[in-house]
Amino acid sequence: MQNGKKLRIEDLGEFGFIARFSRHFLKKLPPGVLGIGDDCAVIPWKGRKKLLVTTDLLIDGVHFLKDRISALDLGYKSLAVNLSDIAAMGGNPRWAFLSIAIPAETEIAWLDEFFRGWRQLARRTGVDLLGGDTTKSRGGLVLNVVILGEADGKHLRYRSSARPGDIVAVTGNLGDSEGGLRLILKGEEKGRIKPEEKYLIRRHYRPRPHLEEGRFLAGQPEVRAMMDVSDGIDSDLRRIMERSDCGVRVFLEQLPISPALKKCASRYHWNLDEVAVAGGEDYCLLLTVAPEKFTGLAEKFFRRFGRPLPAIGQIAGEKNRLRYFRDGHQVELKKSGYDHFRTE
Amino acid sequence: MQNGKKLRIEDLGEFGFIARFSRHFLKKLPPGVLGIGDDCAVIPWKGRKKLLVTTDLLIDGVHFLKDRISALDLGYKSLAVNLSDIAAMGGNPRWAFLSIAIPAETEIAWLDEFFRGWRQLARRTGVDLLGGDTTKSRGGLVLNVVILGEADGKHLRYRSSARPGDIVAVTGNLGDSEGGLRLILKGEEKGRIKPEEKYLIRRHYRPRPHLEEGRFLAGQPEVRAMMDVSDGIDSDLRRIMERSDCGVRVFLEQLPISPALKKCASRYHWNLDEVAVAGGEDYCLLLTVAPEKFTGLAEKFFRRFGRPLPAIGQIAGEKNRLRYFRDGHQVELKKSGYDHFRTE
Repeated sequence: MQNGKKLRIEDLGEFGFIARFSRHFLKKLPPGVLGIGDDCAVIPWKGRKKLLVTTDLLIDGVHFLKDRISALDLGYKSLAVNLSDIAAMGGNPRWAFLSIAIPAETEIAWLDEFFRGWRQLARRTGVDLLGGDTTKSRGGLVLNVVILGEADGKHLRYRSSARPGDIVAVTGNLGDSEGGLRLILKGEEKGRIKPEEKYLIRRHYRPRPHLEEGRFLAGQPEVRAMMDVSDGIDSDLRRIMERSDCGVRVFLEQLPISPALKKCASRYHWNLDEVAVAGGEDYCLLLTVAPEKFTGLAEKFFRRFGRPLPAIGQIAGEKNRLRYFRDGHQVELKKSGYDHFRTE
Repeated sequence: MQNGKKLRIEDLGEFGFIARFSRHFLKKLPPGVLGIGDDCAVIPWKGRKKLLVTTDLLIDGVHFLKDRISALDLGYKSLAVNLSDIAAMGGNPRWAFLSIAIPAETEIAWLDEFFRGWRQLARRTGVDLLGGDTTKSRGGLVLNVVILGEADGKHLRYRSSARPGDIVAVTGNLGDSEGGLRLILKGEEKGRIKPEEKYLIRRHYRPRPHLEEGRFLAGQPEVRAMMDVSDGIDSDLRRIMERSDCGVRVFLEQLPISPALKKCASRYHWNLDEVAVAGGEDYCLLLTVAPEKFTGLAEKFFRRFGRPLPAIGQIAGEKNRLRYFRDGHQVELKKSGYDHFRTE
């Protein structure tokens, strides 16, 4: 056996995998149907209405640590990360399907808490759990969540509509979730912790899907491309570049960073740029806006949500080139986004 | 820690789990929406058209053995078992979503074969793969398949519509898949095997979803309840009993058994009743039919498909009681259906 010579998944990485296998998804689809390449698949429904579909597979040891996260938070978060994909398209979530593979030694009380956390968010967002699948797991806990949502076809926003000159903006602070994760992995959550540490950990365990922001922004004609920040803006912007056939310039001094993250980064000597750019799971929205309309949009956003809409960069014509600047000078950042296939 | 006293998943079993957690699914749903309890969830689409949704989580070591089944067959079968749920409602499958957690050492060639097997069936059944999720797995291979389908609301068939007196019938032979599995677990597939053994193994690895049969039967008003045979008729009939609030009598001498299974059962001293009744994964359809119309339906079925529609039992008024008879005498069968939670 010459296994060493055979090409394996770990040799490809996630982007390589998607590039290689996307041909299985890219057969000619009927008009109005969108397959892979965006936050949700899109299927014609009735009239202008479209059906949105998104799915996420969450595995113990890869996407969460079952012995660290509480069942309550895991229930909440498994739903939240999927709702964020619906938010990214400007849609309304409606129905959920939950598949769960459960280790035999799992306590019923743990599952009760899991469903309690799920329901906290499901009620607030009007999502009905319609079905799924349950099975035992011989390994760890496995979750697969599917959300069906709806959107007005005129108000859908895709990753593929960015144009050179567009302002790139985000609807929330960057890096908080990664900061929280770093604290969790250091074991900080267990001792007596400071309020800013508690805040970051909560941001990691309890991300808020920006559903209202997504629907509001998708209704504004000056908003061109939109997606959610799931793998860190470094990875996520590359997806917009690829789909919109463009480049991006990011102005690091403009990234919105919470006071809590600043404090912790200083205390623990974290590289703030790296945390904000390569950290994932903030689940705010990343959008591009017609430049002449940006100020007006930011004002409308402020009136509606009581907080600013920070501009963090600009779409450029140079294809597939993501460049970082600080105070007008280009800088190189070491780390890029999370890869679901490579082992750290 | 008094872990021994805490209630665990393995103590509940699958039916207990579903009974306990179904309340999370059973909140009041809008009119026309069907949640758990049938082969698919049902959502209003446009006019009389309904959207069907089904999902299955498939785990290495629980639902398949990755080092035994070929990648080609696994790709085919992961799609087939989900299409069978659409068949069971009388629907047309349209779109698929595949989530896959892949061990890092998986060879690309293996995945190519997996997708080739998937496509063989997807093309034939007109199913487009619209998306999913990919991630690395720290344990074994995990697959989650979602199928969206459509059906005319007038022609949907549920598990809940069986009535006392209905004839119970199946659209294919029972026990072939379980026979094939037994041969595989004995290692018979590796040596030179007899044609009837090859046949059973193929029936296990390559089940054919009865989509045409499902659509045809759902169009006949005399067909009342319908579902697919996935866990063995002993388990599956209990689901019809529960949903339709009735009992069932099964006449063992009427069960359709293939000549191949008979030969192998005799060769390896298998209990044929047990294989046919408790063996799962045949993926034919199980239906109940208005008794006065059954003969006519069986004739129409024969004209359309060139094979009989065997009657195997009758719906009874005695609630939740499944009884087996042979030649008019009641018999006790030892084994009941597969439980996804208990360890063998």
